[in-house]
Amino acid sequence: MYRSPIARVGLIGGGQLGLMVAREAIALDIEISILDPHPFPPAARCAFRHIQGALDDPDAIRTLAENCDIISYEIETGDPGTLRRLRKPVEPSPATLEIIQDKLVQRRHLEGAGIPMPAFRELKTEDADETARILQDFGYPLVHKTRRGGYDGRGVAVINTPLPAGQNDPTPLPASPISWNGESYIEEAVSIRKELAVLVARSTDGEIRSYEPVEMHFDPSLNLVDAVIYPADIPPETVTVCRDTAMAAVAALSGAGIFAVELFYTDDHRVLVNEIAPRPHNSGHLTIEAAVTSQFQQHLRAITGLPLGDTTFHQPAVMRNILGGPVPGEPHYRGVDAVLSESEVSLHLYGKKETRPGRKMGHITATGADGWDKAHRSWRKISVNGV
Amino acid sequence: MYRSPIARVGLIGGGQLGLMVAREAIALDIEISILDPHPFPPAARCAFRHIQGALDDPDAIRTLAENCDIISYEIETGDPGTLRRLRKPVEPSPATLEIIQDKLVQRRHLEGAGIPMPAFRELKTEDADETARILQDFGYPLVHKTRRGGYDGRGVAVINTPLPAGQNDPTPLPASPISWNGESYIEEAVSIRKELAVLVARSTDGEIRSYEPVEMHFDPSLNLVDAVIYPADIPPETVTVCRDTAMAAVAALSGAGIFAVELFYTDDHRVLVNEIAPRPHNSGHLTIEAAVTSQFQQHLRAITGLPLGDTTFHQPAVMRNILGGPVPGEPHYRGVDAVLSESEVSLHLYGKKETRPGRKMGHITATGADGWDKAHRSWRKISVNGV
Repeated sequence: MYRSPIARVGLIGGGQLGLMVAREAIALDIEISILDPHPFPPAARCAFRHIQGALDDPDAIRTLAENCDIISYEIETGDPGTLRRLRKPVEPSPATLEIIQDKLVQRRHLEGAGIPMPAFRELKTEDADETARILQDFGYPLVHKTRRGGYDGRGVAVINTPLPAGQNDPTPLPASPISWNGESYIEEAVSIRKELAVLVARSTDGEIRSYEPVEMHFDPSLNLVDAVIYPADIPPETVTVCRDTAMAAVAALSGAGIFAVELFYTDDHRVLVNEIAPRPHNSGHLTIEAAVTSQFQQHLRAITGLPLGDTTFHQPAVMRNILGGPVPGEPHYRGVDAVLSESEVSLHLYGKKETRPGRKMGHITATGADGWDKAHRSWRKISVNGV
Repeated sequence: MYRSPIARVGLIGGGQLGLMVAREAIALDIEISILDPHPFPPAARCAFRHIQGALDDPDAIRTLAENCDIISYEIETGDPGTLRRLRKPVEPSPATLEIIQDKLVQRRHLEGAGIPMPAFRELKTEDADETARILQDFGYPLVHKTRRGGYDGRGVAVINTPLPAGQNDPTPLPASPISWNGESYIEEAVSIRKELAVLVARSTDGEIRSYEPVEMHFDPSLNLVDAVIYPADIPPETVTVCRDTAMAAVAALSGAGIFAVELFYTDDHRVLVNEIAPRPHNSGHLTIEAAVTSQFQQHLRAITGLPLGDTTFHQPAVMRNILGGPVPGEPHYRGVDAVLSESEVSLHLYGKKETRPGRKMGHITATGADGWDKAHRSWRKISVNGV
C-alpha cells in the first residue's frame, strides 16, 4: 500500500535527462526534486522542487536529500563520499558511481568480471620516455583517453602514429589533444563496424532486464550522438550477445536504476564494452515512443522499488538530436511547424533558455516504417539559431 | 520562427485533464499556467504557474490571462462574458462555451445545423398541468434533463411512466430527481445499442480532423464512464457516419481545440449526437498510448496555431477509470505493484491529495491484444481507499 506521493526522488542534475525523468514521474505520482545550478534548468519545468546549487555542493545535496526518500542523478559528477554520508538510499550506488567516474577503474573492474573490452593499458608514469616505450610496446594505432571528465567524445583521441607534433617538439611522445602527463590511459583502436547501445535496468531486489540493442551514429565533427536507430542492423545472434554482454557488465556493478551500456561491434565480429552510463542516456530517448516502458519510467521503477516494466520495443524508430546552431544566446526555433506536420514524428524540445553551438536543445523521434527518411527530413527542417 | 516558450497557455481548471495537457506541453516548450481553487491541484505538479482562485472569479481569470497568450479551459463552467472581455484569444470561443453550457441551447443550435439528435422539447412553463400535458403529448418513456450544470450523468433522469411519486403527491407530474420547475427539458428515450465518442480537433485556421470512434461503457450506479474501448465494435460504414456526424457538429461551433462528441448508436442503427464537450475528455485518455497524437497534445496544437497532428490509432486499447473507494480522505493506493507488473498496461495516477467515493483518482490503459482482459485484471487489483 502506498500513500501519495508513492515516492520522493531527489535528482542531482536538472538537464534534459532529468526533465524526461520528471515528466514520467507525473503519472506514477512520484515527487521529483532536482538540484541544479541554473535558475531555469529544463527539469524545473515539471519538477516538484528545484534547489539551486552546485551539483557537487555537499550542503546543497543534503538540502536536496532532506525532503526525499531516494537520491539519484542524471550526471556522473557527484562526489561519492558526500553521497555515502547522506544516510539515504542513492541509486545507482555511490560505489558504482566511483567506478564509473574513472574510466580506467571501470575497465579494470569490468575486466575482473570477465567482460569483453578493447585491450587497455594504464599510463602511470610521468616519465615521457617510459610512456613512449609503453605506447611502442602497445602498438599503433591506439586510442588515448582521459580517465575522468570526458563525455560526448571529449577526452578521446585516436593516435595513428608515434611521431611527435613537430620536429622541434622536445617530447618523444606523439601529438595528442589530451595531456600525457594527466590521468590518462591507452586502449586498442578496434576496427568498429557499428557502435551499439543496450539499456539494462536493475531493480532494488536485483532483477535485471535488458532492451534490444540500438545503433548509434555519431557526428564526426561534434563527436556526439547524432542518430539512434532501432532495430540495429545486426544478426539475431549478435543481438543476444549484445544483451548478454550488457547484462553481465551491469551485474558486475551494484545499485538499482537504468544503465546504458555502449558497445563496439567490430569488423571481426566481437562485441566489446566501450563504457557504461549509470543513468538514462541519449541512446534510449526513442524508448519513449518505441518501447513498452521508456528508459525514464524504467529508471523510476528501478530506483523506487516498483516492478520493472516490459522492455519490448513495439515499433521501429529513429532518433535525431536537435543541436544549437552557430549563434549562441536566446534560442529561436525554425521549422517547428514543418516537423509537427509530419506524421509519426515526435518533437521534444528541452526548453533551454540559452543555446550554444552544438548544445543539445531537443530531439526528434520518428516511428513506424521509413523512420530514417521521416527523421532525416524533419531534422533538416528544424534548427535552433541556425544560419 | 518561435522563441522559447513557443506559447503561453492559461488553463481554467487544474484537474486531471489540465494535468495531462500540462504534461504534453513540456515537449512542445509550451508554458502552462493554471487557475484552480485548490492549494495542490493535479495540474500544479507540472504547470509553470498556479493561480489559486475560483474558476469563475473575474479577477483571478484576468490574473491568469496577464501572463498568457491564449486562454483555454478544462471545465465548461467559466463565465463567457468575463472571457469575452479578456482581449486575449480564448479557445474554444466564449460563444461556443455559452452554447455548450446550456444543453437545450446546444440542442437548438445543433438542430439548426441539421445534426441528428434525439427528439427534444423545451419545458418553459411553471404551470404543472401544462407541463404534464407537454409530457403526455411527447410520450413515455422520456428523458428529463437539466439545462445547466449536469455532468457524469448528474442531471439526467429516465422517466418511464406519467405517474406521480405517490398517491398524496399534489402535482400531476411524474416523479423525477430533477425539478420540473427548474430549467429543464425533455428528450426522446432512444433505445441505445452503444454509446460512442468521437474526438474532433479544429485548428485556428479552421482545419478539422476526427479520430475513429471509441465505445464508452458506464458504471450504472455512479453514472460515469467506467471503460472506453478502441476499436468500437460497429460496422465500418457506421464508423464513417460517426466521424462525419461529429465533424459536422463541431463545424457548427466556433473556436479551436479538441472537442469530444458523445454519440448514441441506436438499436435502429441511427447515430445521434448526445452532447459535446469543448475540451479533452475521459473518452480520449487512451489516445495517449494508442493514437499517434494524444488528445492533450492535439488540443495544444489546435489552440496555439501549431499544425494538427495525425489522428490515427496505431493499436487497440482499453481504458478503465480508477475511482475512489468508500473511505474519503488521504488516498492510499493498493495494487500499484500488481498493475505495474502487467505488460502493456499504463498506470496514470492523478496525485489528488484527497479521495472521495467515486472520485476519479487515476486510470489504466491496456494496449495491444487482449486489452480488455489486461485492463480488467489490472483494474480489479488496484484500489484507492477500498474496503
